[in-house]
Parts: sequence; structure tokens; C-alpha cells
Amino acid sequence: MLQLYFSPMACSLASRIALMEADLDARYHLVHLLTKKVVGDDSDFRGISSKGAVPVLVLENGERLTECAAVLQYIADLKPELGLAPRPGDPDRYRLQEWLSFIGAEIHKAFLFPTFWYKDDGSLAKPRARIEQTLSVPSAHLADREFLVGNSFTVADAHLTWVLLLLRPAGVDIAQWPSLVSYLARMQSRPAVRDAIATETALRKTLAA
Amino acid sequence: MLQLYFSPMACSLASRIALMEADLDARYHLVHLLTKKVVGDDSDFRGISSKGAVPVLVLENGERLTECAAVLQYIADLKPELGLAPRPGDPDRYRLQEWLSFIGAEIHKAFLFPTFWYKDDGSLAKPRARIEQTLSVPSAHLADREFLVGNSFTVADAHLTWVLLLLRPAGVDIAQWPSLVSYLARMQSRPAVRDAIATETALRKTLAA
Ligand SMILES: N[C@@H](CCC(=O)N[C@@H](CS)C(=O)NCC(=O)O)C(=O)O
Ligand SMILES: N[C@@H](CCC(=O)N[C@@H](CS)C(=O)NCC(=O)O)C(=O)O
Repeated sequence: MLQLYFSPMACSLASRIALMEADLDARYHLVHLLTKKVVGDDSDFRGISSKGAVPVLVLENGERLTECAAVLQYIADLKPELGLAPRPGDPDRYRLQEWLSFIGAEIHKAFLFPTFWYKDDGSLAKPRARIEQTLSVPSAHLADREFLVGNSFTVADAHLTWVLLLLRPAGVDIAQWPSLVSYLARMQSRPAVRDAIATETALRKTLAA
Repeated sequence: MLQLYFSPMACSLASRIALMEADLDARYHLVHLLTKKVVGDDSDFRGISSKGAVPVLVLENGERLTECAAVLQYIADLKPELGLAPRPGDPDRYRLQEWLSFIGAEIHKAFLFPTFWYKDDGSLAKPRARIEQTLSVPSAHLADREFLVGNSFTVADAHLTWVLLLLRPAGVDIAQWPSLVSYLARMQSRPAVRDAIATETALRKTLAA
């Protein structure tokens, strides 16, 4: 069975959404990102991945795959008939890769990561000054589209859904981009997305308690 | 013919290396990243891509593709027989995607980007504190390997070569990671890599002058 190392509401949520959209069973291991401990057996998460970051997907053969862009494409390709990623050879496959890179690098790493991990104002002013320009890219793209790529849900939508959910706790109100607001509501009305978020929201509360 | 919007020694260098390794002709357009002008006709680069960032690859059909990870895979797939990317379906394709994401998000966006674009110390201390841990990942991986993925040169090597070249001007001496030093020397001994770097180094001097 696949296994996913995750932390509640971290970027690994996108991988959980992908697994649930694909109706794939998996064993989920909760990681405490500050202590780098795997909750349950209290083992050192750095023994699972030297990066110390989620997601880590353990494949059926025992190999471990990291990085959202790779994990999400791997999961999508396990059920090609569902169209969670355009098939290799389809020009839209590069559009999927383009969005996964933009979300992972420009929204997650350039903005969300410093906001949550670097607590002093000096580190935050510059990333914050850039985020509006960054968000105008998906906002314009989604003005007349239901999904990021093609005409159906892909793992790029799982990735964007996660990142949009985290913008509010990071201090960015997406109300100024109506197309992002309605997109997020649309994504959250999908049963798999709703269930994945509900599961992780509940788990997050147990951690904070 | 393919067209590449680039800036000398910016991350678009990886795309130039890929094009030259693939022996693909392309028209190159130099972009001034501070003024967002296309050098030559002085047109507004934001009209080419609203992101205002290189690389932008103009495909044969006129569509524009952005983001290193997507552009590099696109170029590699134009000449599948060269193995610049493992073919789709090969498990190593996900390893390629994993490295492209790690280089683009964790080395480029989390470290190099703030270092070059955010000039105050407050913005730089935190990214700098993380970079050693980040670089230990490719350093350990390359201790007993010649290339990042499989046994031959891929576009992930083009990406890592670029990022390693930029570490020194960003204030990080890679001498402390011998496997990265010898890897970079190995990559720079490849004719396509050497020629791509020579071309952009010369162009960069004309810009600074
Ligand atoms: N580039 C990575 C980013 C992974 C990442 O930053 N994960 C965060 C949670 S959202 C994490 O585990 N951070 C802990 C750390 O870096 O110490 C990816 O796309 O998977
Ligand atoms: N995530 C993008 C990053 C592109 C990027 O940051 N390019 C830099 C040059 S290395 C740039 O054009 N910066 C100008 C800007 O962002 O205003 C990719 O992978 O292509």
C-alpha cells in the first residue's frame, strides 16, 4: 500500500487530495514539522527523508518520492483513466508542470514559506510586496476557466486549492480576486477535497491542543 | 523555430544548455530583467509573459511556455532519443521531476532569489541560514553518482549546473562540498554546457558595460 508522510494542512494536503480523488488507499503518517518526529512511534523523520519536509510518498516498492510536483504527477499517473494529469504526450501535460512549478516555487516557496517560518518583519516585507503580482497570474487565468488545466480537475487544482487555503492564515485576503474566491469554493464542493480538508483540520486541532 | 526569452546567467541558462545539448536551433531574445524591456526592439517583456520572468519558450505553434521545470521537460521530449529526460513511464521520470522541483523551489526561490533581489540584511539572514542544509541534499546524492538522474546527462543537470554557478556570486563557496565541486567541473567540461556559459558570460558583460 502507498504511504504518505504528511503534516495537517501543510503542502502534503495536496497529495492527500490527489489520493482521495484517485480513490487510492494509503497509510498516512503524521509528522510534527517543528520536532521532526513521526507522531505515533516518535521516530526521527529525517531518517525517512533527509530534507525533513513533507510530503514523502512511499511507493509500493519501498522507494520514497518527495516534492509536491513529483508526488502529485506520480499519483495521477497511477489512474490515467481519471485524467488527474493529462497523459504524457498531451501538450497540456506541460501546462500541468508549469502550474505545479509556479505554485510550488512562486506562491509556496517565495511567499508562504517565509511567512510561516521566518518570524521577523525584515524577512517578510519583501515576499509580501510581491504576492499580489504573483496571485494576479492564476486570478487572470481562472477568470474564464473552471480548472487550471483543460476542462477537468487535475492535481494542479489540488496544489492550488491547498495554497489558496493557506493564504488567509498567512495574512492575505483573497476577496480582492473574485475568480480565486469562486474557484476555491468550487474546489471545496468536491467530496474528495472536502473530506481531505475536514480530516486534516480535525488532526490539526489535536496537534494544537 | 523555437524562441527563448532569456537574461544572461539567469535561470534561463538551463534552457539554453538544454537546447544546445539537444542541438536544437532557436532564436534568442535578451530581456533586461530590471526594466522588463526586450533588448533590440525595446518592447515590454510583460506583453510576452505577465510573470515578467525568464525563461519563456515560444513553441513552434506560437504558444508560450514558462517555468524552468516545464520548459526543460518540453525541450528534452523534442529529442527523446537523446535521453535528456527519462521517457514518460520510466520511474526515473519522477526523479527528474523531483530534482527540477527541489532546484527550482528550494535552491532558486528559497535562497538565490532573495539574495539577488532583496538587498537588505533582514531579508537575507533566514534564507542564508538554510542553504547549507539544502545543499547537503544534492551533495550527498552526488557523492557516488556522475549525474543527478540515472547514468547520463539530463535537463536536471542543466538546472543544477546553473544554480551551482550562481552560488558564488550569491556568497556561498561550494568548496565545502567536494562532490558538488567535481560535479560542476564535470558538467562544465561538456561542450554544450561550456559554449552556453561562454555565450551568456560575454552577453552579460555587454549589459554591465
Ligand atoms: N519543495 C517542496 C516543499 C516542501 C515543504 O516546504 N514542506 C513544508 C510543509 S508545507 C515542510 O515540511 N517544511 C518543514 C521544513 O522545511 O523544515 C515540495 O514541493 O514538496
Ligand atoms: N519559477 C520560475 C522562476 C523564474 C525566475 O525567477 N526568473 C528570474 C531570473 S533567474 C526572473 O526573471 N526574475 C525577474 C522577476 O521575477 O521580476 C521558473 O522556474 O522559471
